[in-house]
Amino acid sequence: MVDKIYNFGAGPAMLPEPVMQQIQKEWLDFEGMGVSIIEISHRAKEFVAVLDEAQSLFRELTGLPDNYRVLFVHGGARMQFSALPLNFAGRVPSRKCLYVESGNFAGLAAKEAKTFCDMEIIASSAEADYNCIPELDSGQIDQDAAYLHITSNNTLYGTRWNQFPETGKVPLIADMTSELLSRQIDYNKFGVVYAGLQKNLGPSGMAMVIVRDDLLGYAEKKTPTLLNYTQCDKDNSLTNTTNTFAVYVIKLVLEWLKGQGGIAAIEQLNEQKSARLYKVIDGSDFYRSIAQPKHRSIMNVSFKLAIEGLDVKFLEEANDVGLYALKGHRNVGGVRASIYNPMPLAGVEKLASFMEEFECKNG
Amino acid sequence: MVDKIYNFGAGPAMLPEPVMQQIQKEWLDFEGMGVSIIEISHRAKEFVAVLDEAQSLFRELTGLPDNYRVLFVHGGARMQFSALPLNFAGRVPSRKCLYVESGNFAGLAAKEAKTFCDMEIIASSAEADYNCIPELDSGQIDQDAAYLHITSNNTLYGTRWNQFPETGKVPLIADMTSELLSRQIDYNKFGVVYAGLQKNLGPSGMAMVIVRDDLLGYAEKKTPTLLNYTQCDKDNSLTNTTNTFAVYVIKLVLEWLKGQGGIAAIEQLNEQKSARLYKVIDGSDFYRSIAQPKHRSIMNVSFKLAIEGLDVKFLEEANDVGLYALKGHRNVGGVRASIYNPMPLAGVEKLASFMEEFECKNG
Repeated sequence: MVDKIYNFGAGPAMLPEPVMQQIQKEWLDFEGMGVSIIEISHRAKEFVAVLDEAQSLFRELTGLPDNYRVLFVHGGARMQFSALPLNFAGRVPSRKCLYVESGNFAGLAAKEAKTFCDMEIIASSAEADYNCIPELDSGQIDQDAAYLHITSNNTLYGTRWNQFPETGKVPLIADMTSELLSRQIDYNKFGVVYAGLQKNLGPSGMAMVIVRDDLLGYAEKKTPTLLNYTQCDKDNSLTNTTNTFAVYVIKLVLEWLKGQGGIAAIEQLNEQKSARLYKVIDGSDFYRSIAQPKHRSIMNVSFKLAIEGLDVKFLEEANDVGLYALKGHRNVGGVRASIYNPMPLAGVEKLASFMEEFECKNG
Repeated sequence: MVDKIYNFGAGPAMLPEPVMQQIQKEWLDFEGMGVSIIEISHRAKEFVAVLDEAQSLFRELTGLPDNYRVLFVHGGARMQFSALPLNFAGRVPSRKCLYVESGNFAGLAAKEAKTFCDMEIIASSAEADYNCIPELDSGQIDQDAAYLHITSNNTLYGTRWNQFPETGKVPLIADMTSELLSRQIDYNKFGVVYAGLQKNLGPSGMAMVIVRDDLLGYAEKKTPTLLNYTQCDKDNSLTNTTNTFAVYVIKLVLEWLKGQGGIAAIEQLNEQKSARLYKVIDGSDFYRSIAQPKHRSIMNVSFKLAIEGLDVKFLEEANDVGLYALKGHRNVGGVRASIYNPMPLAGVEKLASFMEEFECKNG
């Protein structure tokens, strides 16, 4: 028996312990109503208060400018891969939408867009097996395009954009699924930021979409109503019954984050956590980083063991001591430690020590 | 303080008490994993086992024929209003899809379909304020149509189809959101049956789609991947990260239903529960049924008080004694008691007694 499990799963991922405990505590009786939060109408004043509070906490923590809208939508980030061209391609006569292919999900987003617009991949790191963020010259960006799409953090490979591209008048759209709220972001640089919840924000099945208000109003006629951001904004995310459980959890996660000192504080901790792991990796030939150092993520630390086949033993023994779900994605192999906001420093310390000991015994 | 709350909300609605208690109990530690069910990968064997079990329990309880597929999809029933024409209109050259307008959601389904196909409403009870199911002559059904869509239970008005129409070779599609699993159904009569979860099955944000396998394979090229039932079926509902919490809750609800004796037993109880309320309504001039007797629902009992304005007092006093969320839908007014599978007979008895006493005092 292990005293304490640390869950390094890439998503659906661990949530903050105090959040999980609060959910359990008030599960049968939300705010004295005698029923659960998941058993009340999405139009009940008690639920609408939760939704409003989630939106305003998000605004407060991120310092979101007033001209951005905060939407809760169904289906995770993947559903937005379709919604983005349906909502925004019509902004320009060419219907041209630009994509940067920096990994698996970036590629899937581009592929899905192709169905609905004139999609063009203007940069890719496929030839480098996605171990870096592609070079992108601002001159490459067609100023008549509807938008430029990037994936700001690439979960599988553990890479991220440190500096966001200058896109001129072309709105920059970023899938931030695996890093939203993990570092300070200047939202003014973006037209749209979106994220599936299940990594840094809450349970699976829903996404948040942050959209600059001048980009609304261009949805295709043939857009499914629930993929239409303009409609969603008009209805304050309640066009139909929203995923009430997910909205409730987001609100608790945002409250927790505020209690941790906000995004600046959590970013510092995330830097510290990832640095601890990269130090072990860089300090030996036993472990090999997948991402190039200049583009390393502070959310997903992906690496391989130099000795082929030894990762099976590594993962087994890690699991035995309570280090859970470290297996790399099937497209990449090796090991991946997802260390989202909720992962405490103690979990990272335990993993780092385990890595050092494992090297001693097997190196 | 009230000892016990009975929650008559139309949805998100109450769940069975033992299910809610089990969720609370294993919230922080699912099957000894040391983490919550919502904190593990949708591809973890422990979660896939939950999903598989939910599918097979559904098959077992409904006696579903082998040539039907069971899918879990994002976004509730409303998202399927778009998905249905996108998946099935292409079956026929005319792209004609037939709809029966028996209420609010039936109308919304038809309106949404119009964007994606040649939609035709072939029967409507709008002129009767939806107090009945429209008459439908089988001869009216164009045999070259892609499908005929009905809403089997109309939540707002408390009406339901008792006998389903004979549609010849045209597949019958039914939105059963507010009654799936509440009565025995011969699935062979249907091409597709679907339901948002948040009334009889689980939390909000997801739908189940039961589809006859010969209807798959006709999706529009421009169908968002996550609305494509053929793709969903190929991927066993895991094209992307599913709503893991919802699938987990459905599985628990299905286990609970099996423990109650299955659908035949719950149907008998549902008949008994609704009969108790209709008896009070029909036994006085104080209450007025909204639905015509021949088309009454056993899930939603909607009525008005004969004395205008008295419903406000009724709802307040009901709430004070623990009879929660009885307010009728804003389009209809009056009172609506949603008595889905999880509502115990005791809750209905308490409401019926309250209605009798309220009439004595105010009649």
